[in-house]
This record gives sequence, C-alpha cells and structure tokens, in this order.
Amino acid sequence: MNNVTEHNRKGVIPGGSEQIHSGGAVADHLTLPGLKEIPGGITAPKGFRAAGIHCGVKKSKRDLCLVVSDVPASAAVVLTTNRVQAAPVLVTREQMGRSRVFRAIVVNSGNANACTGDRGMEDAWAMVGAAASALNVGRDEVLVSSTGVIGQFLPIGTITEGIKKAAAFLSPEGGGAAAEAITTTDTFVKEHALEFDWDGTRVTMGGMAKGSGMIAPNMATMLAFVTTDAAVAPAVLHSALSRAADRSFNRISVDGDTSTNDMVAVLANGESGAEPFTEAAGPHYEAFYAALEEMLVTLSKMIVKDGEGATKFIEINVTGAADEASAVKAARAIANSNLVKTAINGEDANWGRILAAVGYSGVDFDPSKVEIFFGNVPILRRNYTIDFSEEEAKKILSRKEITITVCLHEGEGSASFWTCDLSKEYVAINANYRT
Amino acid sequence: MNNVTEHNRKGVIPGGSEQIHSGGAVADHLTLPGLKEIPGGITAPKGFRAAGIHCGVKKSKRDLCLVVSDVPASAAVVLTTNRVQAAPVLVTREQMGRSRVFRAIVVNSGNANACTGDRGMEDAWAMVGAAASALNVGRDEVLVSSTGVIGQFLPIGTITEGIKKAAAFLSPEGGGAAAEAITTTDTFVKEHALEFDWDGTRVTMGGMAKGSGMIAPNMATMLAFVTTDAAVAPAVLHSALSRAADRSFNRISVDGDTSTNDMVAVLANGESGAEPFTEAAGPHYEAFYAALEEMLVTLSKMIVKDGEGATKFIEINVTGAADEASAVKAARAIANSNLVKTAINGEDANWGRILAAVGYSGVDFDPSKVEIFFGNVPILRRNYTIDFSEEEAKKILSRKEITITVCLHEGEGSASFWTCDLSKEYVAINANYRT
Repeated sequence: MNNVTEHNRKGVIPGGSEQIHSGGAVADHLTLPGLKEIPGGITAPKGFRAAGIHCGVKKSKRDLCLVVSDVPASAAVVLTTNRVQAAPVLVTREQMGRSRVFRAIVVNSGNANACTGDRGMEDAWAMVGAAASALNVGRDEVLVSSTGVIGQFLPIGTITEGIKKAAAFLSPEGGGAAAEAITTTDTFVKEHALEFDWDGTRVTMGGMAKGSGMIAPNMATMLAFVTTDAAVAPAVLHSALSRAADRSFNRISVDGDTSTNDMVAVLANGESGAEPFTEAAGPHYEAFYAALEEMLVTLSKMIVKDGEGATKFIEINVTGAADEASAVKAARAIANSNLVKTAINGEDANWGRILAAVGYSGVDFDPSKVEIFFGNVPILRRNYTIDFSEEEAKKILSRKEITITVCLHEGEGSASFWTCDLSKEYVAINANYRT
Repeated sequence: MNNVTEHNRKGVIPGGSEQIHSGGAVADHLTLPGLKEIPGGITAPKGFRAAGIHCGVKKSKRDLCLVVSDVPASAAVVLTTNRVQAAPVLVTREQMGRSRVFRAIVVNSGNANACTGDRGMEDAWAMVGAAASALNVGRDEVLVSSTGVIGQFLPIGTITEGIKKAAAFLSPEGGGAAAEAITTTDTFVKEHALEFDWDGTRVTMGGMAKGSGMIAPNMATMLAFVTTDAAVAPAVLHSALSRAADRSFNRISVDGDTSTNDMVAVLANGESGAEPFTEAAGPHYEAFYAALEEMLVTLSKMIVKDGEGATKFIEINVTGAADEASAVKAARAIANSNLVKTAINGEDANWGRILAAVGYSGVDFDPSKVEIFFGNVPILRRNYTIDFSEEEAKKILSRKEITITVCLHEGEGSASFWTCDLSKEYVAINANYRT
C-alpha cells in the first residue's frame, strides 16, 4: 500500500517504472504529512463502535450490522442514480433531507428490500425505529441500508429482534464483524483504515465496503461506509464525498450495471480533537480530501478485485485527453468493453479493441496520434506504428494486475479507471445464480 | 418468414398469441400490396450482377466480392460513427461527397484495412481503381469496403489481381457467392430478397450482410448491401436508408461494441421500369420505405442470430414509454446488460435485472407501474406484484427465441430491439481469437 501516491502526470508516457501510473488516487500535487495505513476498519477512528451479527436473513452468515458514533456526527451520503431505488435508499434520502447530523447506521445483507412497494418502505422505517430505540437515539439520527435479493419482503421481525441483539454487541473492536455482516457474494471482507497528522493531532479514518459485481445477480451491489474522528461541517463533508466518489466508485466497473441499492456514507464525529473546518477549500480541506479519496479509491479497487469471476485487475489510464471528462469517457468505454475484457482474460495484446472502444466513446480525437502501452511496453505508437514483442506483451498480460495506458495527445486531461477481465466464470456465476 | 408484419401496438399487453410482437419491423399502419419473400439475394433485382471469389487474403475461403449495376444507380450509404474509421470507410465517404450515382461495390474480407494510415488509404484507392478499370467504369462510380483483421496492411497486389479475376465471374446468379465472400467469423451466409407490386410493376429488392459480433475480435463487423430495381432519387434513397437503418441495424446488439468498418449501402438502378419517385413522402415512398425496413430488419436479425456464442435470440419490446426515443433507450440498456444476457443464457426469469437496467438507462419512469412479460406470460405486474409460475417461465426461457416485453405505462412510445444471450462460448471465442 502506497502512502500518498503521485498523481498521473498529464500526457506522460510510461517510463522506467511499471508502477508510475498510480492514477489520480490523490488530488493533484498534494502530499499529506504522515498519511499511512493502519490496521482495522470502521471502528479505527475514536468514538465509533460497531457490531456485526447473524440474525437470520441468511442461513448462517453474519447479516446485520450496526455502526454507532458516541456523539452526533456530520453525515454525507451518495446514493444510486438508478431510477429504481430500494426502500432503504428512499428512507435514507428522506432522513438526509431532514438532518445532516447522525448517530448510527443500520445495514442488513441477504435481502435488498428493493421493488417491495409500500410494505418495503414500512420495513425500512421499522429498521430505523428499532435501531433508534435499541441505541436510545432519535429516529432522525439513523441511516438505513440493505443489500441482497431484489423483490422479496424483509423478514422484518427477525431483523428488528436482530437489531436489539446487535446493540448489545457494539464495541470499538467490532469493525471486522460489521464489515463481514454487509457482504453478500463477496469472496473477501473489505476494510481499510488510515491516519494522518493535522497540526500535531492524529486524525483517523476507517472504512468498509461490499460488492463483487455492479449488481451481483439480483444481489444489490456496492455499499461503502466511512468513519472519521475529524471535525468536518456537513456541507464540507458532502462536497468532499461527492468529489471523491466521482474519482473512485464512479471510476470502477465490473459489468457496467448500476444497482438499485448503491450507497456510500461518511460520518465525521470530531472526536480526534483536531481543529474543525467549515470550508471546502484551504490546506485542511485538501488534506482531508486527499485522505478520503485515498480511502474510497482503496475500497473501490477492493471491489473490482473481488469482481465476479475476475482473474485480473486492470487499471486503465487515459492521458492527453482534451479534458478530464473526456479522459473519463474514453477510459469508461475501454473498461466496459466486453471485447477488451475478454482479450485481457485471454492474455491477448489486442490493441485494436482498445482503440475501437475509444473510437465509439464519443470523445473527439485523432486516431493516428494515439499511443497505447501495456505496463511500460509500447504496443501502438503514433501513425499506427506497431512494433512490439508479442513475448514481452504476453509477459505483462500474464500478470494478475495489468496497467493499460492510452495517450491521446490532444490535451492535458487524464483519468484512471479500474476494472477486471470478463471470464467464463462470470457467465457461469451470473447464469446460474438464482437456480 | 412473415410478409408485412404488423407494428407493435402502443402500450398493448401481450395477449393470446406469442408472436404478436413483431416489433416495429414495418412503418406504422402500413401494408404493402403483394410484399413477399423470394429466393436469392443481392442479384435478385433486375440489372445487377455479382461475383464472390477466393483471391488469397484468406487461406482458402472466398474473400473478394464485386457487385455491379448494369446502369448507373442511385446510391445511399450509412457509415460507422466510430471515430476510428477504416481506410475504405474514409474513401467511400469521399466518393459519396463527390457523386450519388454509382455502378459498383468492391469488398474484401479477411483484412479490415483499419488503423493502417496513409498506406491504407492508398490501398483502398487502389481497390477502387482496379475495380473501375476491370469493369470499365469511372473511378468515381465505385464504392469500397473491407472487413477482417485490424492493423495489418492489405496484400494489395493479391487483391487487385483478384478484382480482375472476379470481374470475369460476374453473373446475375452471383449473389450467393458474393454473400459468402463478405463473411468473416459468420457461421452462416446472410441473404434476403423480396418483391412487391407497384402500380402493376414488380419491384425487387435484394440484400446480403455479414457480422457475428459488433466487432468480432479484431474482425471488423457489420456490413450490409442492398440492391433494388426501383427508381429512387439519391436524396430520397438516403432519407429512407437513414430512417430504416435507425430502426434495424441501430437496434441490434451482440456485445455493445461498434466497429471501425460498419457500412450499409443501397443501390437503386430503376431497371424494374417502375415509376421513379423523387420525394421522401407519399404512398410510393412509404411503400418503398416499408420494403427497405423489412429488408434491413431481416438482415439485422440474421446478424444477431449469428452472434458469437449465442444460444438464444432475444426480442425486447418496450411499450408505453414517454416517446419512441425513450423506448429505444430503455430497450438498448436491457439488450446491453451482461446481467440480463447471462440470466437468459441460464434460463432464469430474473426480472429484477431487467427492471434495474431500465432504471439506469436514463429514461424517466415510475418503477411501480412497470409490467414485464416473457412471451405472453406476465412476470411482474404493477406495484411489484410477482405472481408467475417458475415452471411456465422456464418453459418460455428454454426456447431458442425469446420475447421480453416491458410496459412502462408512461406514454405512447414503443420500440423493439434485438440481441442474443451472453454465453461462456462468447468469452471463449473472444479470449482466444488472435492466439
């Protein structure tokens, strides 16, 4: 794990090192003093407790999670843009409209409470109510989230009983159990924590995520929860989250599908004692933003690495685009191309599919200026010059982690995007899931 | 094969027959007297000859095709929107800028002449020149097209020799050989012909197509050529082709990738003796348009049925959308969803994935009003009411051809879209193609 990684230089062609393309993981030209990874997850920051238990939605695995701040915390949330929104997404949106200060998050896995109509809404509110009463906080201080099968009603009695039980298990060491309790088809638990110095005060940030397909078959997707003991005003937290989510969760793709239940939430409770900040600018904000982006990019990459049937992790760097938006557009088209993803699966240096994907991305560029690299090996040079050793390309493509760099030579825009290959196993998992 | 198929009624829910959703195959409320399928393809209309030979681009299969009109014919062409455009696409665009009356089309398969820079342009012009000289027509009367591997130079000497040879084989019975010569990874030859009455005159239309993946690995995609002995002014022909291509080739998807070489061309030579028409309106135009749409939809469906690794043909009908554009958007999102395509591959009645795809399509709708049918079996009714027999659904999904209807209940817009399932074989074909 890098500390602060240097931003991808604009238009630069890969040189000596294969790892120079860290890919926009941190705001430009920013270094953050003492940023480092620490063990743990959501309960690493001061003043947070969590629990993850089995209550009975799933057969035997943990399926209910509580995250609680000892004091009221600023909250920011990003929700799915899918028009079909699960009941907990609608309830959380309503809660966020009422307040920006929260105490708790309650999450169940195994059932998404999506496409469940009025009864689904009642059930989501019942989860909020049960958590508020078990934790002795206000109903308007609880956020709710669900993930799992679409179109089935929650076993709400089981869940509200589970919430009471989970409250008894809350602990500052409960992060790991909580991270386990939000998983569905995930093959590993996704946690990350980091700390940094802030005018002499240690500030900590912890996170957990779940997801292994944009919609794992009927299983709703991508959740991420982040806690921090920094003191951040809600509006500033929202601004940082929007920007960081745009450069992390909005830059990954497993299969291009967007779920009905996606949610990223951040709670900031100020318990570190670090100086509060209230403006989305200045060195304090930029330092906090850098840490948050590092957190979300790390969690995003974990989700891609757990992509259904994935055998390879692919980082796509587009440089020299007219602007950042164009770079993202081109990178997304490459990342979503089944033909590119199957070629990588087959370890085939198929640059034609990459160039064709940029061609239909809607980005304006001159194809004859494009250069493509696998790792630091040039595959395509200007004027369609192809001059690479198949052997060298094969060596790069045989690795578990592959970096593809596309230089458009049109301007200064660059972006990174993360995806995985498309394997026969993906088809097998998704064709046979329900049956 | 149907004659004129009735247009999908707006907002109607499937009833007694499973085949009622013929899906926008013909302009609304139009019936065309005596429209019927006839044997043959590109040389079915009067005054067209064709040849398809093996010249040596491929190892042993036919790889060079000529289509010639005995007299100058009106021409209309639709070309790929990919920013990366093969040399023959650029040359054809230049030719069409100069004239709208053509005599011949020359096509090679096995090599796309794409991403080949200046030398590629010279080679494409050399093909035009060789055809003009072999056929004794003007250089500005020849269209050119290529399909096959990207990024390799044409064996241009082999091809120009081949063009001379092919000219000697031109025949009014050459349609079948020509259709074979434009294929690449296709598993069957795609030809279609039809005739209709026009104030007592028999008018004929013939067509051929190739394609079995939007970009079959490095192999450039989708070509279609149509001939007719109707007399149609170039501007009118262009207007009809744009509209019909939009409702056929722009409504199919195998893997969502758009090729560098896509081309649809129509030649109309007037040899039927039927009355010419010069306006894109009125009953003559509408009749001609209906025939052209029927031709292109039939060729489009053939391409989908030959989708790489496809085991099922899927027709997606979206009805009750706010307008036709919204219906197309929703249908395209369903058709391009890997999760929907793998579910159909697994014969799983997974309506949640279909609804979620509409949800992220960008179309405005109320999810609780949506109804989904497989064939004529309702799967999802209003207010998320799920009440279907898994057995009945399974029976429908076990067929080779599956119709999915999604009623949004928002307005009068409807559209059909055609796609295929996503199988392990697709991945195998595309992962292992080059190696």
